[in-house]
Amino acid sequence: MSKVSADSRVAIVIHGGAGTIAQTDMTDDKEAEIRATLQQSIQAGYKALLNGDSSTEAVIAAIKVMEDSPLFNAGKGAVFNAAGKHEMDASIMEGAGLNAGAVASVSGIRNPIDLASRVMTESEHVMLMGHGAEEFARQQGFDMLSPDYFYTDFRRQQLQRIKAKELARADQQDQWFSTVGAVALDRHGDLAAGTSTGGTCNKRWGRVGDSPIIGAGTYASNNSCAVSATGHGEFFIRYVVAYNICNRVELGTPLADAADTVVNDILVKAKGEGGVIAIDHRGNIATPFNSEGMYRASIDTKGVMEVSIYRENNDSEGALKGNVDH
Amino acid sequence: MSKVSADSRVAIVIHGGAGTIAQTDMTDDKEAEIRATLQQSIQAGYKALLNGDSSTEAVIAAIKVMEDSPLFNAGKGAVFNAAGKHEMDASIMEGAGLNAGAVASVSGIRNPIDLASRVMTESEHVMLMGHGAEEFARQQGFDMLSPDYFYTDFRRQQLQRIKAKELARADQQDQWFSTVGAVALDRHGDLAAGTSTGGTCNKRWGRVGDSPIIGAGTYASNNSCAVSATGHGEFFIRYVVAYNICNRVELGTPLADAADTVVNDILVKAKGEGGVIAIDHRGNIATPFNSEGMYRASIDTKGVMEVSIYRENNDSEGALKGNVDH
Repeated sequence: MSKVSADSRVAIVIHGGAGTIAQTDMTDDKEAEIRATLQQSIQAGYKALLNGDSSTEAVIAAIKVMEDSPLFNAGKGAVFNAAGKHEMDASIMEGAGLNAGAVASVSGIRNPIDLASRVMTESEHVMLMGHGAEEFARQQGFDMLSPDYFYTDFRRQQLQRIKAKELARADQQDQWFSTVGAVALDRHGDLAAGTSTGGTCNKRWGRVGDSPIIGAGTYASNNSCAVSATGHGEFFIRYVVAYNICNRVELGTPLADAADTVVNDILVKAKGEGGVIAIDHRGNIATPFNSEGMYRASIDTKGVMEVSIYRENNDSEGALKGNVDH
Repeated sequence: MSKVSADSRVAIVIHGGAGTIAQTDMTDDKEAEIRATLQQSIQAGYKALLNGDSSTEAVIAAIKVMEDSPLFNAGKGAVFNAAGKHEMDASIMEGAGLNAGAVASVSGIRNPIDLASRVMTESEHVMLMGHGAEEFARQQGFDMLSPDYFYTDFRRQQLQRIKAKELARADQQDQWFSTVGAVALDRHGDLAAGTSTGGTCNKRWGRVGDSPIIGAGTYASNNSCAVSATGHGEFFIRYVVAYNICNRVELGTPLADAADTVVNDILVKAKGEGGVIAIDHRGNIATPFNSEGMYRASIDTKGVMEVSIYRENNDSEGALKGNVDH
């Protein structure tokens, strides 16, 4: 419908979760490492876009860098659930044709975003879960990794701390901090969005958050925008956050206003902490969050890169800005 | 926001699934039985509303009648998955406060709508799935029933037919025909919506449909309306059908137009078969479907009951109309 012309510039935005790791856990070295990985991720996605790959491929390329890093709560760095296992969720959606795929509560998959993409392209379904989704993964030739691959001292200590102190609620912020996601606009004017998470630390009862829910954690439509969310999933489900923003944009609200209204008005009133990344079909970018920070990076249609953790107007924690090296 | 006054009349709508049982399986006796159960269900919900119960309680009362019947694909009559088991989904949402609860892929629960409601009221979560959800059910004192309870010859034959003929795709219509749902407006002006299903017959890979997805299969907001959907779930997820309709109503579109646009324009163009039931905060009712039929019943604010299977303007299959016996 309202596609930008084929010669327009491409753009991409990623997030590595809303909130920030508790100050006690954050060191200068760790922050530098996180910023470097965000930069690696955004550049992987941007490179794909420059190569002429689709926004879907770019979103996957960017997310896989974060899934392969132990720093984020997705893939390799996924948190432990209450049973000491890793159950991961991911979803992806294409703005052209509204195709979508999602997996919930899968174990042993290195890159859940790849599996979500395969659900989209190789099954008649949108969402698969649990052992059934793993069976589909095996049929699709995915390697099933042992739990060792997902073991990280940081996450094990996090689980032990939460269990020991029975601080499941007080420590809940830790749980969604580092969900990862990406949204992109490719040279064909097509939008895509993807989200991947290890769920919540010390998770019980097979809880499903917003990340694998099309409409809540992920949505994309070429008629409006692409959104990936991160935050207290229950609120993001109840307010259908990703689709809510897309819907406002489709009805004529500018992207920044639509995203801001949902994140900083509706969710704040509901006490739903978190943020989103969003990009519209013109390449406008919005990254509002109502938490202390949100790991994020973007490369806009002019090729300008930003890598940020805290609020942009906080100079001492200000955004890293620079032209992209490509 | 736009609540009707407390002395307004109550209203309720139910569905027992879009599409209709294949003609070869439908007999006059079976049709009479289905109509009788729909009437029993709508009257159970209406009675609750007249007693001053909340719309949530009315929705649960109506849905439980259908879950307890072997005629619908929910609870007792749930279809068999490919492994010969019953995996059920349900969700519920309150228009006041946007509280919601959902369960996906649970076995052994007589009334999954009760469990979804308990997730809403007794957990911090919106959605629980699989064995974890069953663990939560046990902690909440739910009886765990043996598979015998859910055995029905009709569903076993359906599975055998699909497996034997490998008609999983061709026969797919059978799969979502008899999802059940209810929406209600209570005397306080509060709306609620609920949906319950046995999923898809011969289901593989832990497929999740729209029924347990808040926004897709179920949504309710006192600012707009309450919606329960039934149909080809993948399309209902991608188009965020229930919230999509609520959003249009909140922005000023009359309920009938909003529901009709989504079901008979957007979904038809996408080839997404199914229907919805919807009620707004004034008690207006809409029951559009783009399939051959939709099992449904309603009692409006004037106390007029309708029980229908096919299109209302088809006289030979016309709606059963009459005043409610209460």
